[in-house]
Amino acid sequence: MRQNDTLDFVHHGDKYFLHHLSIDCVIFGYHERQLKVLLLKWKNAEKWSLPGGFIKLEETLEDAASRILTERTGLSQLFLQQFHTFGEPKRSVRTAADIAHLESIWKTDVPKEHWLLKRTVSIGYYSVTEYSQVNPQPDYLSDECTWHDIHSIPQLVFDHNLIVTEALKALRMQINLQPIGYNLLPKKFTLPEIHDLYETILDKKLDRRNFPKKLLSLGIIKKLDEQKSIGAHRSPFLYKFDKRKYDKALKEGIVLAF
Amino acid sequence: MRQNDTLDFVHHGDKYFLHHLSIDCVIFGYHERQLKVLLLKWKNAEKWSLPGGFIKLEETLEDAASRILTERTGLSQLFLQQFHTFGEPKRSVRTAADIAHLESIWKTDVPKEHWLLKRTVSIGYYSVTEYSQVNPQPDYLSDECTWHDIHSIPQLVFDHNLIVTEALKALRMQINLQPIGYNLLPKKFTLPEIHDLYETILDKKLDRRNFPKKLLSLGIIKKLDEQKSIGAHRSPFLYKFDKRKYDKALKEGIVLAF
Repeated sequence: MRQNDTLDFVHHGDKYFLHHLSIDCVIFGYHERQLKVLLLKWKNAEKWSLPGGFIKLEETLEDAASRILTERTGLSQLFLQQFHTFGEPKRSVRTAADIAHLESIWKTDVPKEHWLLKRTVSIGYYSVTEYSQVNPQPDYLSDECTWHDIHSIPQLVFDHNLIVTEALKALRMQINLQPIGYNLLPKKFTLPEIHDLYETILDKKLDRRNFPKKLLSLGIIKKLDEQKSIGAHRSPFLYKFDKRKYDKALKEGIVLAF
Repeated sequence: MRQNDTLDFVHHGDKYFLHHLSIDCVIFGYHERQLKVLLLKWKNAEKWSLPGGFIKLEETLEDAASRILTERTGLSQLFLQQFHTFGEPKRSVRTAADIAHLESIWKTDVPKEHWLLKRTVSIGYYSVTEYSQVNPQPDYLSDECTWHDIHSIPQLVFDHNLIVTEALKALRMQINLQPIGYNLLPKKFTLPEIHDLYETILDKKLDRRNFPKKLLSLGIIKKLDEQKSIGAHRSPFLYKFDKRKYDKALKEGIVLAF
């Protein structure tokens, strides 16, 4: 959002956005045993938040979530999954200092009765991407748009720490019931690589022998007649996803007992 | 809601309810191999809907869901679980006939710009109860409040059929990850009784031998030194839930692979 857009949003947004409702996006990034989350640092302030925004009057929730993510971070084409709606009455109260800060960034007054200062219920969406392959950028309202390890997330504004915690729970529940990894691993991968992915997301050790059995027996991954050379005497077999079975399992659900 | 309350709601509700947001409750009822859902029949109309309503300015979503359920059906003390938020832009459009019908019930005009006629995003909650043990009652706006088998749900207003479908998916996902049954079975029950409960909710056959193993091995149910007499030569052992392990599993999650 550029400054002109911002002024328009502040002064006329009440006519084209739904009041009382916002969307917040929790974007997880995976790469080589690391799980991170994408955060925005507010312009000229030591405050961090999730990328979030408001819903246009005629827009579906999914379209709004995608648009907001793109406007705020530059990321697009992620599959955003709704997971929970956050509605504590005081969750989004802005202090006088917050409002003064907004006024300094927006370079305009924000009246006390402004629609943005009303109670806001926020619909949470999450997604997982391979963070070494995307290049997020801060918007006009932010100084930084960066990845943070999920074990060292800073204090976030409003209830955004809770939103991240709940998104992580939802992601962990999801990988018990749906396959994951198609966009997170190389096209051909070793069993240790997919094992690392699951261990990192679940944040716990999985049995090296039993873990891949279920994925193999469901046909979601299949062994290739090809090995990866990773050093003297080490050449593990490569595997790939069976996209048809993977998509079927996505649609119909599976149960992986971790 | 009585008629006076209704008039107040129609004419002054815009000041004490959040605009654009509602809650719909999907109440499942289980009893002896039958799974039903609780529906309201609109007063003087052949229209069926879920019990739903609006959120007060200062109310949490959970409090709103409980209050709405009680106001509309008389049911209370159910654990309501949020599962999805429904926001198709046209989901709640009311036709001219719908508005005329509202006016006849409410016995007052509903102006075109009325807040109730704006786009409404609805937050879905579900619960499961033992339907033979509760006595739902219709409110002022309804002629009937009755249980309908999930295999023969009538055409519902707005997107309520979709909301029921999604609630059922969420319930089925939940019972893969959390125990269920504490309020749905007698204090002491036989394995066929808990087996029937799971088969009915999942709507599929489960293996008679393997099914209870997981629940037993997790300690969620335990065998009593007591048998139920259900006829000549038939006296299956009784079981009960271990409430402490049940609650722990509720909190921490389990994975039952059906």
